[in-house]
Amino acid sequence: MSNTFRSLYPDQRLLMGPGPSNVHPRVLAAMARPTVGHLDPWFSGFMEDLKELLRMAFRTRNSLTFPVSAPGSAGMETCFVNLVEPGDEVVMVVNGVFGNRMMENVVNAGGRPVAVEFEWGAPVDPQKVDDALKAHPDAKILAFVHAETSTGVRADAAALAEIGRRHDCLVVMDAVTSVGGIPVEVDAWGIDAVYTGTQKCLSCPPGLSPVSFSDRAAQAVRDRKTPVRSWFLDLNKVMAYWDGSGGRSYHHTAPVNALYALHEALVMLSEEGLENSWKRHADIHLELKAALEGLGLEFLVPEECRLPQLNAVRVPEGINEAAVRSHVLNRYSLEIGAGLGSLAGKIWRVGLMGQTAQRSSVALCLEAMKDALAAQGR
Amino acid sequence: MSNTFRSLYPDQRLLMGPGPSNVHPRVLAAMARPTVGHLDPWFSGFMEDLKELLRMAFRTRNSLTFPVSAPGSAGMETCFVNLVEPGDEVVMVVNGVFGNRMMENVVNAGGRPVAVEFEWGAPVDPQKVDDALKAHPDAKILAFVHAETSTGVRADAAALAEIGRRHDCLVVMDAVTSVGGIPVEVDAWGIDAVYTGTQKCLSCPPGLSPVSFSDRAAQAVRDRKTPVRSWFLDLNKVMAYWDGSGGRSYHHTAPVNALYALHEALVMLSEEGLENSWKRHADIHLELKAALEGLGLEFLVPEECRLPQLNAVRVPEGINEAAVRSHVLNRYSLEIGAGLGSLAGKIWRVGLMGQTAQRSSVALCLEAMKDALAAQGR
Repeated sequence: MSNTFRSLYPDQRLLMGPGPSNVHPRVLAAMARPTVGHLDPWFSGFMEDLKELLRMAFRTRNSLTFPVSAPGSAGMETCFVNLVEPGDEVVMVVNGVFGNRMMENVVNAGGRPVAVEFEWGAPVDPQKVDDALKAHPDAKILAFVHAETSTGVRADAAALAEIGRRHDCLVVMDAVTSVGGIPVEVDAWGIDAVYTGTQKCLSCPPGLSPVSFSDRAAQAVRDRKTPVRSWFLDLNKVMAYWDGSGGRSYHHTAPVNALYALHEALVMLSEEGLENSWKRHADIHLELKAALEGLGLEFLVPEECRLPQLNAVRVPEGINEAAVRSHVLNRYSLEIGAGLGSLAGKIWRVGLMGQTAQRSSVALCLEAMKDALAAQGR
Repeated sequence: MSNTFRSLYPDQRLLMGPGPSNVHPRVLAAMARPTVGHLDPWFSGFMEDLKELLRMAFRTRNSLTFPVSAPGSAGMETCFVNLVEPGDEVVMVVNGVFGNRMMENVVNAGGRPVAVEFEWGAPVDPQKVDDALKAHPDAKILAFVHAETSTGVRADAAALAEIGRRHDCLVVMDAVTSVGGIPVEVDAWGIDAVYTGTQKCLSCPPGLSPVSFSDRAAQAVRDRKTPVRSWFLDLNKVMAYWDGSGGRSYHHTAPVNALYALHEALVMLSEEGLENSWKRHADIHLELKAALEGLGLEFLVPEECRLPQLNAVRVPEGINEAAVRSHVLNRYSLEIGAGLGSLAGKIWRVGLMGQTAQRSSVALCLEAMKDALAAQGR
């Protein structure tokens, strides 16, 4: 057994990838506050405060609103494993990695996915979704990704949710990359189940996945005829802890310090104001757009459905995309993201999420990219 | 929308419950280091270091050793959802809350549990387990809890594992409360799958569940005939990220800062030495025993199978157990735990885990309990 283990200190990065984004020192400091017990009376009050802050970020009054004790993918699984029963038909928009992942979750839960596919990076046409629901009148759920992190496409969530409800479906929305960065209106749009991540536009360390369920979605979980296929993510069990109305009964040990960090990040968001945060993301995106277009770079996604917080930038012909990422990481401590799936090697993903969405980020990115491209003779 | 949200600061507690235990400032400070990307080359090296530290704590050379990105209950589910296929018979020791929870996980995975039950707080007789395996020659798995957190009973893990292997079973062990506090010898005992928690004798904030799988257990997962019933916990997917040999392919976003904390806690454990940590827990337990017996209190569990790190203490007749817990919490900021399940109201659970296992903890606990009992006229 070795005795040579030592503490390791990470480099300080500017995180302009697809998440995590940069975390404010206030949030890091909150994470380092003393751990208390997950059944401590003080912590019980803290949890109620945290749920109220999440309702602010989701724009909802849903009672069933809380953070799942694991990263965003577990929030996705929470939605599908609780709402889908064997044989249930789920119509889903598939236009990137996370649409595919939703489909895998539906299959795991025993459901029958009906994929409405769109080219990666192209707009999502609500009419095609309406047609699919007409062709599948028994569908129980309509699911879509609001902000596709793999491509940078924004779906028209209000229109899709309206179509889903018109066809009497429960509407499930992936808002991992949207909450805090662009308008999300869970109640006004009529979303029944939504999940997000902490490490995107909320600028928290990764590790939690806030979710919110409408009353009719919560009722559907209570009315299940078959057991939920997960112990850890079974809402019927988890709620005995997060719903404080009947006292907190132990389910699993909550990740106390990660919850401190999320609370502080949401307090910062409430201080800035949610609308101001949306506007900041939009404004800084325009500055990034001007800077990158000035370098002759092009965006993958048409302007009308382009996300401000996740910028898919085409790799110019003749450029080694991985070498550019290494160059800016090694020389500028700047992280930008690679393409995923069918877009691997074809795009960079440049994030402007949460604390990263600052003018200074754009300035550093511009100079670093200019240098990296010049190093390849461009 | 309210603008009155504010930062919340927890009270500083002495955590002598069933976990979380007290977290050292070094570990809290590590958790607050700058977040890096989960695919950062620096982080990739950090992950290898962390895996090696976990092998030290588990006493194993298992290649498949890493922390699941969620609390201990998810580590339990990882073991069962990956190893159990529909129809598989699983013989399991059930002598407390966590044995029952293992059984629920087996059912969720489609398996057929065979419970070998013992009275809560009583010793686990290996002969009864041997008899059950003789009666169920097709059993694929033997599962047991090494340190039952709900009762304070230590099972003879070496004997049980030997019996399991003699009957050609995969041996699954819950080591949530044992790792770091009492000897755990994954390789020497022949354990095939083991999970622990960070918030017990490792004295980290809750939120992660280190696991380790033997080569034959890993092979059993690869050889499954049916898909794993969880997306988030499917080892066939997760390993593409944690097994660095073929590069790290993205599965979910790792909880970066929680992993910093675990790394630092394990560095501290390696500095102290694992055997020294075991001895410290044993020594401080004897001091607590002397102190509590001096107050006329009695232990639930017979000495030969009593855990040093989790002390189940009988509530004397006529004493309001909840009032005692409130008294020591409110007047001394000392947390002790309540009984669970059939032991609710009948015992307190006094933890001496990790950083909490110090002479000063015993001294405060003694004075606080004396005062609380006196307040009830005893």
